Amino acid sequence: MTIDPKNPVDVARALIACESVTPDEGGALALLERLLAPLGLEVERPVFSADGTPDIENLFARRGDGEAFVFAGHTDVVPPGDVAKWRHNPFVGAAEAGELFGRGAVDMKGAIACMVAAVARRPNAGPVAFLITGDEEGPAINGTAKLLEWATARGERFASCLLGEPSNPNALGDEIKVGRRGSLSGTVTIAGVQGHVAYPHRADNPVRRLPKALSALMDQALDDGTEHFQPSNLEVVSVESGAGAFNVIPGEAKLRFNIRYNDRHDAASLTGLVRERLDNALGAGGYNLDLEPHTGDAFLTPPGAFSDVVADAVEAETGRRPALTTTGGTSDARFIKSYCPVVEFGLVGRTMHQVNERVSIADLETLTRIYERVLEKATGA
Amino acid sequence: MTIDPKNPVDVARALIACESVTPDEGGALALLERLLAPLGLEVERPVFSADGTPDIENLFARRGDGEAFVFAGHTDVVPPGDVAKWRHNPFVGAAEAGELFGRGAVDMKGAIACMVAAVARRPNAGPVAFLITGDEEGPAINGTAKLLEWATARGERFASCLLGEPSNPNALGDEIKVGRRGSLSGTVTIAGVQGHVAYPHRADNPVRRLPKALSALMDQALDDGTEHFQPSNLEVVSVESGAGAFNVIPGEAKLRFNIRYNDRHDAASLTGLVRERLDNALGAGGYNLDLEPHTGDAFLTPPGAFSDVVADAVEAETGRRPALTTTGGTSDARFIKSYCPVVEFGLVGRTMHQVNERVSIADLETLTRIYERVLEKATGA
Ligand SMILES: [Zn+2]
Ligand SMILES: [Zn+2]
Repeated sequence: MTIDPKNPVDVARALIACESVTPDEGGALALLERLLAPLGLEVERPVFSADGTPDIENLFARRGDGEAFVFAGHTDVVPPGDVAKWRHNPFVGAAEAGELFGRGAVDMKGAIACMVAAVARRPNAGPVAFLITGDEEGPAINGTAKLLEWATARGERFASCLLGEPSNPNALGDEIKVGRRGSLSGTVTIAGVQGHVAYPHRADNPVRRLPKALSALMDQALDDGTEHFQPSNLEVVSVESGAGAFNVIPGEAKLRFNIRYNDRHDAASLTGLVRERLDNALGAGGYNLDLEPHTGDAFLTPPGAFSDVVADAVEAETGRRPALTTTGGTSDARFIKSYCPVVEFGLVGRTMHQVNERVSIADLETLTRIYERVLEKATGA
Repeated sequence: MTIDPKNPVDVARALIACESVTPDEGGALALLERLLAPLGLEVERPVFSADGTPDIENLFARRGDGEAFVFAGHTDVVPPGDVAKWRHNPFVGAAEAGELFGRGAVDMKGAIACMVAAVARRPNAGPVAFLITGDEEGPAINGTAKLLEWATARGERFASCLLGEPSNPNALGDEIKVGRRGSLSGTVTIAGVQGHVAYPHRADNPVRRLPKALSALMDQALDDGTEHFQPSNLEVVSVESGAGAFNVIPGEAKLRFNIRYNDRHDAASLTGLVRERLDNALGAGGYNLDLEPHTGDAFLTPPGAFSDVVADAVEAETGRRPALTTTGGTSDARFIKSYCPVVEFGLVGRTMHQVNERVSIADLETLTRIYERVLEKATGA
């Protein structure tokens, strides 16, 4: 079967058929290489390794000379879950009622298909590159971060980057992401003395200090938001205490938290704030705080020339002016932002990571046209 | 080896040598039968069964006619734990520096040995019975409760009962237990809506309601004690919430509690009080309360003639007037109290359930003499 690279539906279906659940390449990058090389792109597929993680295949491709405009994304997908619950096999790309079903349909094989189609349709665009990883849904250790290092070490330079994550909550044209919040996780341990419930004076129940600790973390806002970010938010994601018996007073209580934070904070200042509040509640020696490895501070690509290019393209094709937002989870944009301005615009994320993930076939055509416009303007072609 | 039934050290050592970890009989009841039969007691060893629990051997013995004074106790023991940490094999009964080592030395093979010796030394005492179970440290389903039913169904009647649990915190003569607190356990479930930490507005974190729930249960006393009981006490023994990931807001929080309560409450009134406090904190529909099977309300054998008999005997042998208390955990006295007045007096509990459990050899002789006096007075001999 030949695949028409100008047809995003064809390309999306072929990509969905690759079982590229992280960390498996599943044939997805090989397919991209087969599609991009005939379009005049030079394709490299570096493999990155790290102790304790699987080796990961990545793809870098470029056409033209000089600072390139970059299409970035990932071909790896999360597992399909219970396949029996899907209306269509998650690795086929079956169409029904104007929608294409499959794992990765919107996150983000569909968007990659649109990138390929845009580049195929605009052979005269300026320098363009693809930065595609197979490790976005996994630990993200052998993916975009290393691919950027690898490419720049070879002398590659990037003018701007569009990352194709599903940025639209409900309909194509809703939102462009111009930044992401930071994320910080930690564990608070409160020590006590285990004992028998019949002799509480010989024990020290750490649960008695939990209300104060929880209130210290949850009751007071971290800030009230900034120009481009919503307020920072802390969630206690777990509380654990108990020896497993109704007659034993536990010797320890643990609570784990995650903070999604805006550009008013960085990891260090936020850690200081958390410690200050816990010190007030429990005393400076009354707890232990362990932070998880930090995954990134908040960042912002200040709205300006590049976001205007993308917003104009979206408006031209959808008739809607997208909002510039910084909400939601993290993405590989946190790595790219150190190299060039990066914004995110892709498909509609509603079904991502769910059973029956699916994309509107019409959206694939519209997004291709948006990407064509961005490619043209961003490369000055 | 012949065992002198009048020598509590001999008997204790032989009992310790039986590996009678619940539910195993370990030869302990067979040994008692061999010792008691020659003393003129008629011995029965009924086995009780229940679905989902192991069969348990028990022993009932009696000498003389009419309402009997009862020595009650258990030959089963808790596991020895790490045997390597013991100074002497826990199932030998080795003596060192005036102490006898072994699992059950004080809880309560030592006390049973004293009961046997007392009955051996007082052949002319009035009607006396032994009510010995092998299921006190286990679920207590096939033990004393059923043995009492079984015996009374055969027409047995009891005048009073001395249960030989280790009632003394530090030295022989400290305390007689004249009652025990009740125990009530339950689980409070607070429902929320699970979600991703990046989208807290789509979730409902139940941990946010935990401080109020915990404070409602823990901050206010249940009472300030009664004439013979210390204040009731509630401990939260476990708090559980969390989906196991730093990026997931949990959908549910559970807390488990145990209340040790005095004669100001019963299970029903206490449940009402807990519900009232939780209703105030969380709203009547804001939580779910599940109670564990109830193991017994508080009870008291009002200080009087029988406790005086025991206290007089203790004072005569130790020179100290024991306090009449109701502290500590539960015991089989909660079953016996429905049949006759029951008090508890035994050895020094300091090492019970621990590695290197041990009993003072001198205490075994003193306790035997105390039991002799009680036997004589209680049977009016
Ligand atoms: Zn994605
Ligand atoms: Zn015991």
